[in-house]
Amino acid sequence: MRILLIGATGTIGKAIAATLGRRHEVLLASRQQAPLHVDIADPASIRGLYAKVGKVGAVISAAGQARFKPLDELSDADFRFSLDNKLMGQVNLVRYGFASVADSGSITITSGILAQQPSRGSGAISLVNAGLEGFARAAALEAPRGIRINVVSPPWLTETLQALGMPLQGGLPAATVAQAYVRSVEGTETGQVISP
Amino acid sequence: MRILLIGATGTIGKAIAATLGRRHEVLLASRQQAPLHVDIADPASIRGLYAKVGKVGAVISAAGQARFKPLDELSDADFRFSLDNKLMGQVNLVRYGFASVADSGSITITSGILAQQPSRGSGAISLVNAGLEGFARAAALEAPRGIRINVVSPPWLTETLQALGMPLQGGLPAATVAQAYVRSVEGTETGQVISP
Repeated sequence: MRILLIGATGTIGKAIAATLGRRHEVLLASRQQAPLHVDIADPASIRGLYAKVGKVGAVISAAGQARFKPLDELSDADFRFSLDNKLMGQVNLVRYGFASVADSGSITITSGILAQQPSRGSGAISLVNAGLEGFARAAALEAPRGIRINVVSPPWLTETLQALGMPLQGGLPAATVAQAYVRSVEGTETGQVISP
Repeated sequence: MRILLIGATGTIGKAIAATLGRRHEVLLASRQQAPLHVDIADPASIRGLYAKVGKVGAVISAAGQARFKPLDELSDADFRFSLDNKLMGQVNLVRYGFASVADSGSITITSGILAQQPSRGSGAISLVNAGLEGFARAAALEAPRGIRINVVSPPWLTETLQALGMPLQGGLPAATVAQAYVRSVEGTETGQVISP
């Protein structure tokens, strides 16, 4: 199947590309370094990507930024940035993507464990991640032509914890997290929050 | 205690005012008809409200609008409206409100059952409601001076179902829902999604 992968150059994106690339044609998109360019904070950029790519069997987003800062330092602009980018960027990948996805195809977006298990500094990210889960559950009820919609909620990545010099417990390697996307693309679930 | 109630003229707001008004001083605010005016979609309006009201023991929001429409009719503007109003309006009531809330006071906002149990048409509302729950869980970890933050997630109201001519099963009267706000204000919980 042809799979459009947005966020292809991130830690999770690279692992998804490596895993699904073994048996599918994976089209790599990202904001800077992938062959296909997209800035998901810009609706016109998303529409341009879909126009260029044509029909696919699946869309996967492992993309999106949100601000991690102490609550009293998170500014109005930080919330706006987070909502425009990781939240509405992925919501729009779903909304604008239906016409590009084949019958019974799938769209998979990415939230994160902070949706349900917040930490100090996660005010904006917890909002964004939980909002994405609420949206995906709802959108799955109305997706046309049997298209499935799921959201993968990754825990902290071992790679990230290692880079930050933090304890590795509770983390999972990106290669393991990638299996949750495989399950969403190749399985039959819809409207689910998939925790790797 | 002095309690600032935003959304005081709505179905839930009126029930909260009636219940808490028996033993507290409840300051009534809303967009149109209450003594205190506030438009929560406008950050300056929220700041103006807090400046006028002074110190309170609790802030309650039962306010905020979001668009309910079939997914393929929800426009970019509908999402923007919903995010600016019910979502960021209540997030900002929390963020801007800390300085006005007494030590060990509380802020209670409102999500709704569509966060977890979507229906067709709830794409934007489910996003908003779930996002509010994610935010409240996170913000509670960083609230200063023992201030508690909770979110009440009301089911469909009997009053609303009746007005829409829908079956009443699963609905609760606003007076029952108001008890969840009493529990948030007078209890000791924080970071909780309270389902009436």
